[in-house]
Amino acid sequence: MTTEATNKCTIIDGKKTAATIRQELKEEIESLAQSHNGIVPGLAVVLVGNRVDSATYVRMKKKAAVEIGIHSIDVTLPITISQQDLKAEIEKLNQDPKVHGILVQLPLPEHIKESEILMAIDYTKDADGFSARNIGNMWLGRGTGDPPLAIPCTPAGCIDLLQRYEIDITGKECVVLGRSNIVGMPVAALLQSCNGTVTVCHSRTKNIPEIIGRADILIAAIGKPEYVRGEWLKPGVVIVDVGINDKPDATKKRGYRLVGDVHYDEALQKASAITPVPGGVGPMTIAMLMKNTVNLCRHSLGLPRLTLRNKI
Amino acid sequence: MTTEATNKCTIIDGKKTAATIRQELKEEIESLAQSHNGIVPGLAVVLVGNRVDSATYVRMKKKAAVEIGIHSIDVTLPITISQQDLKAEIEKLNQDPKVHGILVQLPLPEHIKESEILMAIDYTKDADGFSARNIGNMWLGRGTGDPPLAIPCTPAGCIDLLQRYEIDITGKECVVLGRSNIVGMPVAALLQSCNGTVTVCHSRTKNIPEIIGRADILIAAIGKPEYVRGEWLKPGVVIVDVGINDKPDATKKRGYRLVGDVHYDEALQKASAITPVPGGVGPMTIAMLMKNTVNLCRHSLGLPRLTLRNKI
Ligand SMILES: NC(=O)C1=CN([C@@H]2O[C@H](COP(=O)(O)OP(=O)(O)OC[C@H]3O[C@@H](n4cnc5c(N)ncnc54)[C@H](OP(=O)(O)O)[C@@H]3O)[C@@H](O)[C@H]2O)C=CC1
Ligand SMILES: NC(=O)C1=CN([C@@H]2O[C@H](COP(=O)(O)OP(=O)(O)OC[C@H]3O[C@@H](n4cnc5c(N)ncnc54)[C@H](OP(=O)(O)O)[C@@H]3O)[C@@H](O)[C@H]2O)C=CC1
Repeated sequence: MTTEATNKCTIIDGKKTAATIRQELKEEIESLAQSHNGIVPGLAVVLVGNRVDSATYVRMKKKAAVEIGIHSIDVTLPITISQQDLKAEIEKLNQDPKVHGILVQLPLPEHIKESEILMAIDYTKDADGFSARNIGNMWLGRGTGDPPLAIPCTPAGCIDLLQRYEIDITGKECVVLGRSNIVGMPVAALLQSCNGTVTVCHSRTKNIPEIIGRADILIAAIGKPEYVRGEWLKPGVVIVDVGINDKPDATKKRGYRLVGDVHYDEALQKASAITPVPGGVGPMTIAMLMKNTVNLCRHSLGLPRLTLRNKI
Repeated sequence: MTTEATNKCTIIDGKKTAATIRQELKEEIESLAQSHNGIVPGLAVVLVGNRVDSATYVRMKKKAAVEIGIHSIDVTLPITISQQDLKAEIEKLNQDPKVHGILVQLPLPEHIKESEILMAIDYTKDADGFSARNIGNMWLGRGTGDPPLAIPCTPAGCIDLLQRYEIDITGKECVVLGRSNIVGMPVAALLQSCNGTVTVCHSRTKNIPEIIGRADILIAAIGKPEYVRGEWLKPGVVIVDVGINDKPDATKKRGYRLVGDVHYDEALQKASAITPVPGGVGPMTIAMLMKNTVNLCRHSLGLPRLTLRNKI
């Protein structure tokens, strides 16, 4: 190659940032215990069946919880459990005063109606922040709603990274690629709360390269390996790459490696900052789950939520 | 003037469309009564104090209700009413089985905490569809939420106009000017449900003329008279002008006339379709309030909502 890498691009370090947040939360948990009679935030993680990937995620969440002083309650249930029995388990956790946050690891087995199970989680214990009332309050924001009790974890992680790297969102053109309820839409809500001008793209959007080319801030969350090409990007764009995709790679022992939704090497030549995959948004998601758990514990004590850095 | 009006622009007739909807609802109300033991949808309209504009709106709503066979319950309260007493009035309406929809005319007097009153309205009787749970379900849409019970009236009116004029939204660049909880944000949610690619602009947005120039469909809702100029527009754009503003006009008896947020005469030269002010979105808002009331009555009978035309 004869091109020189003249572009200076900041690599946004999600792993380090997540560690900082976990440390902050550890201190918060200690101070809560001191001021509130030894209270310990409790997170119940419900795992149905024995999918290997789900079991790994649950183990990671549990480990992060224990390290910072959150009491982790494992609820491991057989893959054959009925809808009714699973709901009864959730109901038990709703009643348990030691449980402040409840997380049901998805996906659930085919015979279970997922949305009904999620809706069974008490609004005040919804550690993922996915309930309609919480999402409604997030969109209503300033004005007619209550403050949300929890913020969906991956979106919160994206915004926290931008804020900790002092990337101002106000007045910026923000393009969100993907509109899922888990990532795309809550990210769009948060970017708008931060006064960004937000455009959401999805599978029916035309001229995606052109729209991406307008972005000052791009959040990519579609689950397509290296979909976004360098030549589409506006010079100086800030990229948060949420995608986690397998890409065949013969040089790796396991035969593949992880890549994001953005072509990283190409983007490095154009962007002013970018999150890598892995080590970008991924670690932030778990840190934000911990933060939600601490916040739900605070809520049970009548204390307000610890917000994201600019009060969102 | 030497310019010829070569552009062919459809004037979207909100008055006529609203009349059609009211007629459809009248037939629905008759058929509901026949199939369900003479049931009559009931709408309670709560008016606090004696603001002239609020009294006018309430009168218009009541008139529209009665004309199509909705039972209208007036609750007129003194401006001095306490927060607690007003909440008690709402509670009475929540309990009353003859009341299917409750609407509190805004603004409320200064000493009343508006959001607390709105939150006191039972979710199943929220005729404006503004509650957090309803708004959350609207955003969640396909997938993890319940269907919303009511759709905010003005936004529903905007979408219904587009649909009845057979303006396809899928894949179109939609620009929403304004981000209020009453108009801008629910319009954005609905446009996205219809597979538009949506950008929301607000007071912190930069380069508004440029962003408006990208719009295939423009919804203007900022409350600034004739803010959007013809030269900003992409030829062929479809414009829904929600704004209702007074503009001084010496030729009028009352000294002013109503204008929208878009410069109408200029826009006529560029747009392929436009809603006038008055006679565009305005009449649709009340028609949609009637539709919400009928839908809440249907919900009380265990029947699903009558959707907007493409099932939204
Ligand atoms: N870092 C982390 O901690 C997390 C990472 N992820 C990763 O983020 C990615 C997205 O996850 P998630 O939101 O759950 O995915 P979903 O599959 O739920 O949603 C994907 C979205 O992308 C849109 N889309 C798909 N293909 C295209 C395309 N070619 N062009 C434009 N839009 C497209 C879809 O549009 P439509 O709605 O029209 O179908 C949909 O809105 C995945 O790679 C996932 O692994 C997810 C969660 C956490
Ligand atoms: N036809 C009908 O039935 C109805 C008509 N209306 C009319 O619609 C209009 C909007 O109403 P509503 O949504 O309640 O108004 P609000 O005042 O609640 O909201 C106005 C929105 O416009 C944004 N805004 C204000 N000025 C500018 C600007 N110069 N550039 C960009 N954005 C701007 C504000 O941004 P920010 O959030 O940053 O402050 C805000 O989001 C009004 O004219 C109102 O009368 C309203 C309801 C029903």
